[in-house]
Amino acid sequence: MALRFISKRSGSFESSGIRKVFDLAAKLPDPINLSIGQPDFDVPESGRLAMIDAINSKQGGYTATQGLAELREAVQVEVDVKYGHTDRSVFISSGTSGALTLALLATVDAGDEVIFFDPYFVMYYALTSMVGGLPVPVSTYPDFRYDIDRLSDAITPKTKAIILNSPSNPTGKVASREEVKAIAELAVKRDILLISDEIYKSFCYGVDFASPAEYNEQTLVLDGFSKSTGMPGWRVGFVHGQSELIEQMLKFQQYTFVCAPRVGQIGALAVMNTDMSVQIGSYRHRRDMLLDSLGNYYEINKPEGAFYMFPKIPPNYKSASEFVERGINEFSLLVIPGNIFSKDDTHFRISYSASESTVQRGIDALKKLAKNKK
Amino acid sequence: MALRFISKRSGSFESSGIRKVFDLAAKLPDPINLSIGQPDFDVPESGRLAMIDAINSKQGGYTATQGLAELREAVQVEVDVKYGHTDRSVFISSGTSGALTLALLATVDAGDEVIFFDPYFVMYYALTSMVGGLPVPVSTYPDFRYDIDRLSDAITPKTKAIILNSPSNPTGKVASREEVKAIAELAVKRDILLISDEIYKSFCYGVDFASPAEYNEQTLVLDGFSKSTGMPGWRVGFVHGQSELIEQMLKFQQYTFVCAPRVGQIGALAVMNTDMSVQIGSYRHRRDMLLDSLGNYYEINKPEGAFYMFPKIPPNYKSASEFVERGINEFSLLVIPGNIFSKDDTHFRISYSASESTVQRGIDALKKLAKNKK
Repeated sequence: MALRFISKRSGSFESSGIRKVFDLAAKLPDPINLSIGQPDFDVPESGRLAMIDAINSKQGGYTATQGLAELREAVQVEVDVKYGHTDRSVFISSGTSGALTLALLATVDAGDEVIFFDPYFVMYYALTSMVGGLPVPVSTYPDFRYDIDRLSDAITPKTKAIILNSPSNPTGKVASREEVKAIAELAVKRDILLISDEIYKSFCYGVDFASPAEYNEQTLVLDGFSKSTGMPGWRVGFVHGQSELIEQMLKFQQYTFVCAPRVGQIGALAVMNTDMSVQIGSYRHRRDMLLDSLGNYYEINKPEGAFYMFPKIPPNYKSASEFVERGINEFSLLVIPGNIFSKDDTHFRISYSASESTVQRGIDALKKLAKNKK
Repeated sequence: MALRFISKRSGSFESSGIRKVFDLAAKLPDPINLSIGQPDFDVPESGRLAMIDAINSKQGGYTATQGLAELREAVQVEVDVKYGHTDRSVFISSGTSGALTLALLATVDAGDEVIFFDPYFVMYYALTSMVGGLPVPVSTYPDFRYDIDRLSDAITPKTKAIILNSPSNPTGKVASREEVKAIAELAVKRDILLISDEIYKSFCYGVDFASPAEYNEQTLVLDGFSKSTGMPGWRVGFVHGQSELIEQMLKFQQYTFVCAPRVGQIGALAVMNTDMSVQIGSYRHRRDMLLDSLGNYYEINKPEGAFYMFPKIPPNYKSASEFVERGINEFSLLVIPGNIFSKDDTHFRISYSASESTVQRGIDALKKLAKNKK
């Protein structure tokens, strides 16, 4: 093979640095792994039983492109009750990443600009590039707030979409209702598609989640079951938005993802209303452990959601990459350097989707890495 | 929502007409459904048991991008034994459609031409258009043979890839070893990527399957478990090819499909060497039923593989679309008109992935639709 067969598109973005950390994690004998982007709980028992039933009843076939009717309709009812929009259609996607892929394919052409807040989830940058768009990260340093003025300043005549991610991966920030409303109204006013990635919406600690779809009927919402009910490996997400756009996304789904896995959809239907407050409470406890223990050592913007925090590196390190490398070499500590999520390399992501004992080992290592209290 | 949010890309291809037939099928009370593109058997028991075990042991998480190590390695061993190439890497995709999506993203840029034989699997046309390429269908009428001269004549300096699909959906034709060798060598000589879609390779009736990878080390092979082991709804396929290209495809997979469903991969591992000869024999029997019964009524090019045949419409119909509409209205018979798979609308696709009694009902209806013997 020669590079002559590879598309130019392939050169427009890089393989994620997170994957490199995962590959490394597989080689370390007993790492302190605070790099994981998936829940540490499994799908609830009702879901497991429903999926086993489905397997026993030989449900190995495709579903319709738009998803299993029962699941799609159940989500549609929820969405209709919540928003009461006259035009808001649901379909089932292959995870939230699948939904994002379809959203960008269906809306972004070569040269279109897509705005998102920096630090950002890695896929926003890569997928915008994949479809020929121009990623426009808007800095939120140092407090990671969703600043309406900075967002407004980034809009140009080429802006096609804004991606909002609250609760945020990697900062754990949750946009306030006022911030969400301002962003939603700005998108309407400037006639820009607002894409709301709500995959972490169940993970809010003492703050309320607000969706921009409450203030902007054109909002395209991406969501899923992976994080909320512990089934990321099942690849089941969902999308809701105005039907014209949903219809286009389904056209792309038909030829790419085909449908979300049938048995996974059956599992999602079984668990979609399960009370996960015990699991959420446990995440909140781990967040508090980290904040209480590391608050004197690191500058940490208090995260209110998801299962991440994004502390600043101590002053005795030149870059987050150097800091993370030191952590790996000295303590087998796996965290993700900020430059994976950002133009800047000054912070690092801790995932506390790990056992309390792993979190405690992480705290001990991080204290030593900081060397001095703030 | 207005159309202003929709990408130009969305206008480059149509929703599949097959989906319209499926939607229709859902509304008819007791259709004679010979339109189905998936096996009518489920994943073998060993696979079901392995998947149930996986669910019970709470394996709801992601796998690595390239797939579950055990499955990837098992397929790699098979591939190495069969081809003995020094550079042929395997990864697990989300079905063969997922593999095709990644292949075209990783290789085809705007304006590149992609050649495939007409009639063709609908995705080739749509996905080539989706990535900005130009689909170049090469007619195989009237005998559906894989003609090297016609293929050669279609090559231009813009040709980036040739997609070979044998056994073919929709014709059921299997390329002879000589045809495969000629195509493989032509691709090498003209320095064009050859993509071999081998999803139906287990379904050959009295003829041998040959892969172009036997004659062209650069061949990218797309394959999967959906058809061969009855698990299309699990979305598990695999790919093998030269490592530079595989690496690029994985980069796209990381941000789109993420990984194939974990439990489905566990099922695939359990069944990958299962003897499916009883199921294959049953398909062959149904093919023979159709050929024996309809041979005097329709012009049928004998299909040697897959579970499709592609007869010509009788002379008393103006188009396949008209013929299919008549079949639906008079007999609730669902077959697919040729223009879904072709520039021409002169033939129709029968899928015999249906019970013998359904096939028999189809035969009765088709005899009446033909009205006169040939």
